[in-house]
Amino acid sequence: MKKLSILIILQVICFVTVFSQGRLLTIDEATIGQYRQFYPKTINQLQWRFGSETYTFIKKGNLFEGGVKNTNEKEILTSKELSTAFEAVNVKEVNGFGSFSWISPTLIKIDRPDGIALLDVKTKKVESYIKIDDEIENADFSIESKMLAYTKANNLFVADINSKITPVSSEKNTGIVFGKTVHRNEFGIEKGTYWSPSGKKLAFYRMDESMVTEYPLVDIEPRIAELNKLRYPMAGMQSHEVTVGVFSVENGNIIYLKTGEPKVQYLTNISWSNDEKFIFIAVLNPQQNHMKFNQYDALTGEFVKTLFEEKNDRYVEPLKPAVFLKKSNDKFIWQSQRDGYNHFYLYDFNGKMLKQITKGEWVVTEFLGFNEKETELFYVSTEKSPLERNLYSVNIETGKTVLLTTEKGYHAAMLSDSKNYILDQYSSIEFPNVINLNDSKGKKVRELVNAENPMKDVSMPEMQMFIIKAADGKTDLYGRVIKPLNFDKTKKYPAILYVYGGPHAQLVDNTWLGGAPLWDYYMAQKGYVVITIDNRGSANRGFEFESVIHRNVGEAEALDQMEVIKYLKNLGYVDEKRIGVHGWSYGGFMTINLMTTFPDVFKAGVAGGPVIDWKYYEVMYGERYMDTPQENPDGYQKSSLINKAKNLKGELLIIHGYIDDTVVLQNSLSFLQQCIKDGILIDYFLYPEHQHNVRGMDRIHLMKKITKYFDDNL
Amino acid sequence: MKKLSILIILQVICFVTVFSQGRLLTIDEATIGQYRQFYPKTINQLQWRFGSETYTFIKKGNLFEGGVKNTNEKEILTSKELSTAFEAVNVKEVNGFGSFSWISPTLIKIDRPDGIALLDVKTKKVESYIKIDDEIENADFSIESKMLAYTKANNLFVADINSKITPVSSEKNTGIVFGKTVHRNEFGIEKGTYWSPSGKKLAFYRMDESMVTEYPLVDIEPRIAELNKLRYPMAGMQSHEVTVGVFSVENGNIIYLKTGEPKVQYLTNISWSNDEKFIFIAVLNPQQNHMKFNQYDALTGEFVKTLFEEKNDRYVEPLKPAVFLKKSNDKFIWQSQRDGYNHFYLYDFNGKMLKQITKGEWVVTEFLGFNEKETELFYVSTEKSPLERNLYSVNIETGKTVLLTTEKGYHAAMLSDSKNYILDQYSSIEFPNVINLNDSKGKKVRELVNAENPMKDVSMPEMQMFIIKAADGKTDLYGRVIKPLNFDKTKKYPAILYVYGGPHAQLVDNTWLGGAPLWDYYMAQKGYVVITIDNRGSANRGFEFESVIHRNVGEAEALDQMEVIKYLKNLGYVDEKRIGVHGWSYGGFMTINLMTTFPDVFKAGVAGGPVIDWKYYEVMYGERYMDTPQENPDGYQKSSLINKAKNLKGELLIIHGYIDDTVVLQNSLSFLQQCIKDGILIDYFLYPEHQHNVRGMDRIHLMKKITKYFDDNL
Repeated sequence: MKKLSILIILQVICFVTVFSQGRLLTIDEATIGQYRQFYPKTINQLQWRFGSETYTFIKKGNLFEGGVKNTNEKEILTSKELSTAFEAVNVKEVNGFGSFSWISPTLIKIDRPDGIALLDVKTKKVESYIKIDDEIENADFSIESKMLAYTKANNLFVADINSKITPVSSEKNTGIVFGKTVHRNEFGIEKGTYWSPSGKKLAFYRMDESMVTEYPLVDIEPRIAELNKLRYPMAGMQSHEVTVGVFSVENGNIIYLKTGEPKVQYLTNISWSNDEKFIFIAVLNPQQNHMKFNQYDALTGEFVKTLFEEKNDRYVEPLKPAVFLKKSNDKFIWQSQRDGYNHFYLYDFNGKMLKQITKGEWVVTEFLGFNEKETELFYVSTEKSPLERNLYSVNIETGKTVLLTTEKGYHAAMLSDSKNYILDQYSSIEFPNVINLNDSKGKKVRELVNAENPMKDVSMPEMQMFIIKAADGKTDLYGRVIKPLNFDKTKKYPAILYVYGGPHAQLVDNTWLGGAPLWDYYMAQKGYVVITIDNRGSANRGFEFESVIHRNVGEAEALDQMEVIKYLKNLGYVDEKRIGVHGWSYGGFMTINLMTTFPDVFKAGVAGGPVIDWKYYEVMYGERYMDTPQENPDGYQKSSLINKAKNLKGELLIIHGYIDDTVVLQNSLSFLQQCIKDGILIDYFLYPEHQHNVRGMDRIHLMKKITKYFDDNL
Repeated sequence: MKKLSILIILQVICFVTVFSQGRLLTIDEATIGQYRQFYPKTINQLQWRFGSETYTFIKKGNLFEGGVKNTNEKEILTSKELSTAFEAVNVKEVNGFGSFSWISPTLIKIDRPDGIALLDVKTKKVESYIKIDDEIENADFSIESKMLAYTKANNLFVADINSKITPVSSEKNTGIVFGKTVHRNEFGIEKGTYWSPSGKKLAFYRMDESMVTEYPLVDIEPRIAELNKLRYPMAGMQSHEVTVGVFSVENGNIIYLKTGEPKVQYLTNISWSNDEKFIFIAVLNPQQNHMKFNQYDALTGEFVKTLFEEKNDRYVEPLKPAVFLKKSNDKFIWQSQRDGYNHFYLYDFNGKMLKQITKGEWVVTEFLGFNEKETELFYVSTEKSPLERNLYSVNIETGKTVLLTTEKGYHAAMLSDSKNYILDQYSSIEFPNVINLNDSKGKKVRELVNAENPMKDVSMPEMQMFIIKAADGKTDLYGRVIKPLNFDKTKKYPAILYVYGGPHAQLVDNTWLGGAPLWDYYMAQKGYVVITIDNRGSANRGFEFESVIHRNVGEAEALDQMEVIKYLKNLGYVDEKRIGVHGWSYGGFMTINLMTTFPDVFKAGVAGGPVIDWKYYEVMYGERYMDTPQENPDGYQKSSLINKAKNLKGELLIIHGYIDDTVVLQNSLSFLQQCIKDGILIDYFLYPEHQHNVRGMDRIHLMKKITKYFDDNL
């Protein structure tokens, strides 16, 4: 019981003071209700109007506008008017605004399956419609040049405002792809085309993956099952080769940046200089421990210089492109966690670091923009608490920061084009959803929404957040525990540990419901204690915290999770013989890792889409944390669950999407095969038409399945 | 209880009179012990010596010979001598005789991975070794010409006694295969090469399956999972095209028989006339309801004539090639179930049926040979009982049959080359294994082995055989029930129905253990009643019995199985709320079919490698029973378990071999997907490295898994 003395109870929130007052959740509600009937009231498609201090949103299918000064929100385009506008250009059945954005004070760009439409909200007419004779992918529109870049199959095209199409590539070899995201979306890469500021040039990725082994995925939907081949480079195996081309809209020329050898390297975070003369790329070596921030001539493709380098014994992970100041043509902001935490740095074009703008044992999570004069920078950080996100401004010159959000919670914000106003949206364990219109000093102008408790008719179990020490004895870890409904401290309850545990993710935060899925509350309604903690190795706590897993995934994370098991046992109301564990993806790995490393602790577990042996995971993510199997054979051996299968004692259900293209099926099947060899009985289930997650209505079946497994075995 | 009055108790066998005397089986023993420690004593590789009245066998690795007249069995070749003989031709580590057969009074042919060796038992030397520089498949040796036909990859070769190789085919397109079995081994086809009587000509199959859709099978053993493509024609889809070639050893010429259109037809039961001038083929139309017995000129390939035809509204299924009498060059024996039961017919070369040789409401199961004068024919049939197999001779002229086996049971026999003696092997529920040397009148000369009860140290549960009426109210069905160990008639026991139910199989017979796997007894030791019946649709009861499933699989079989459920309930000691069902393949189909058609009857079931929708099964077998989906849409709809998934109430575990190339994975996955859509919870398990069955040591895991499922859910 000594351990308890070091616990600091942060918050105790009782959503429902009289527990038995409301009704119970159904499994359907517990699975999808969070995004439907229990979704807090909000404002749909809220965004700033281009170059103005008014905001727009969709209400009942119509486009409304609100101003900073006046509280009257007025309708500016009805769904009827939208339909009429589209009918005039022969498009029938326009089903609402869909995805749209402001591209001028009067024009909105509406994304269509076959192109994009520019609609004038004043004339209520479709001014232009760039229409392609097919479904297009990766549409990327330049506001400046009104050019649309897009891909079809593996090739890249651009279309002008008159829908005149120019192919940028016409590659027949399907192993070579143009204009799409590369490196499996690691390093912050989410797209494959980058318009220059004027829209006259287009930088694009070319990825040759013809040398990458194909992983066979089988689609059972056709009359006879068909094969889909996935170019999936596994750790230590041949990866793809990426280059960056530059297409000139004016003359159709294409040049390639001379990014040189080795061919297998990472070309990340592409950005254009304001004058379009240069392209900057964070070039990361294959070992992922040495990044060069390189400048290339956009006209000739020549390498100009390396502005600066970052090295780390573990890894370097550039995630955000440089942001160039507009007032000066030779300065940019760079984000780096080189001092242990992600912060802003100001650089000039000579690669000279002018200053570190933010500093502290917390991380910048988002760059929002500059003020008009570019003397201040708006951003979101974890400075107040890793559980919160708050908005700040920092004076680039003085480094003085100002907190712009006062309410405790998890804030997101949008800056108006005028830089004078901010739309601040937040939730917390107390507030389901609040949106305020604030000025740029953080002063509230008006509350736009303050949602009532959507769970008010439901008997919600009590949730508590807590802090415990990690297995290192010093690091704070943040947790969340949900007590069984109608909690009786004299009883002993079964408990379920929900785990993820890997990088780039945080499960516990000060958002509505504490970041927990409603299913956790559903299980607590059924009488389970449900607990979760963000162990070392997870996100938003700095480099040391996250990178502790380097070359040795599974160890520190599991030791930390065992600290939460100690905490659970010390609560006094948990039946120590009835502890279960559940997680998906990295959490699936952790579930099996925990059950096979501490076989006497866990009575039952459900692992979804688990990595079983990191040699089956892909190069980009896998080698960052584990190096290659050749470089780190011990680490791969130690973390391989195949070697631990024989230890399993509890009841384990593995669930996998049959066409999982993230964690391929070879993972779970290899574990099954080892269990078969070792005479270990386990359970298995497949979702035949699902990939790495079970989405849509089928998710209800999934959660029923998981629930039943714990009901039957825990 | 009225129903019980019609039951006839055939046999009650108590293996162990005092139940608690022996020990219990382990799951390992229950799975593989039947073929190891509990395998009854026998004589290994017993066979007649070529052209003699002595028999040979292997004892302790050495070759022994026994005579009819003398009771002394003498060693004729030791394993040491075998090794020495092979060392002389530079083959090290010959691990015993392996697979061998007599090809002359002194020569044995020993099958080797890279060819065949001819060993003289007198000189104790390897006289010839046809050795190929690789692993060969489908080795087929002509005793007469001493030529070896074999395949490598998709091509066919012949090699002479000096290992000189002649390619018969050199096809690059892997979609075209030579010299291998065709039509997925249906129609009695088990090989792809047919030597002429002199061994100077080789008839062979050529199968073009390049137009058949490939089903993707994934092998997870390699570093990155690999694809194996299986040419799998599904019912109603494009099937392969087969032709028959004839290769001349003397001049290397190849001609193809002019088997004509349609290209998709079945060329079955190839046989050569004694003079080698003709080849006879049972040509079956694609609809499988019209067979023509055709004669082709072996020199020119020309079609000569159709000797006779067989038609049936349901289907015609030729399974045995014609057998030509040696004493007359224009007569042959044909087996057909045209009168409702499989019998022998005598034909001449004009296609004139000279006579029906056997007749009756029972079936010939095996042709053994003629007597020296070819006036009598030896065969095995079910005449005495469908549960038994007995040896008979029939006078071809008079039709007079003589029963040559007197002991009740299931007999197999080998006729000596002299035709004067018979090696008669049998077992029954009383006798584990008996081998007698008899004369050709059935008179016992000597008992060679009479195995003691291998289960004598085990407490074996009581097994009973029984007869009930089928759902048609008139047909006898044969069943087997095993009572729980230490049976107490005042108790209520859970019961497991083990089911197969499809054509070509019979589960209940008068063999040792009644045809049951030891696992059935293991489950009875654990307290389950285990029951099995051969429903209508199963084998060896005549055409009407088996073909009742035509165009409507699943219905009659299920109704019959429900009769055994009635029987079970009437026993008085079965807990009606705890009835389980289990089966594999067709039995997997039946398991799910029963559970979804009679959802209130079955509390739990385990279905292995189940056909889910017959449209996913292959053309040959599938269309024989179901026609095509286009021709019989209602039948396919009615029998599809996808449509019945929503009815499921009991706990169902589906198990499938991940690389099942008989019942492809699309079956079980489609059912899973439907259950997911319908919100039905079921269980699933895969054996990643297994095909249609789980064999070898992994089978222990399988049986543990199945056992646990019934323990947990029944």
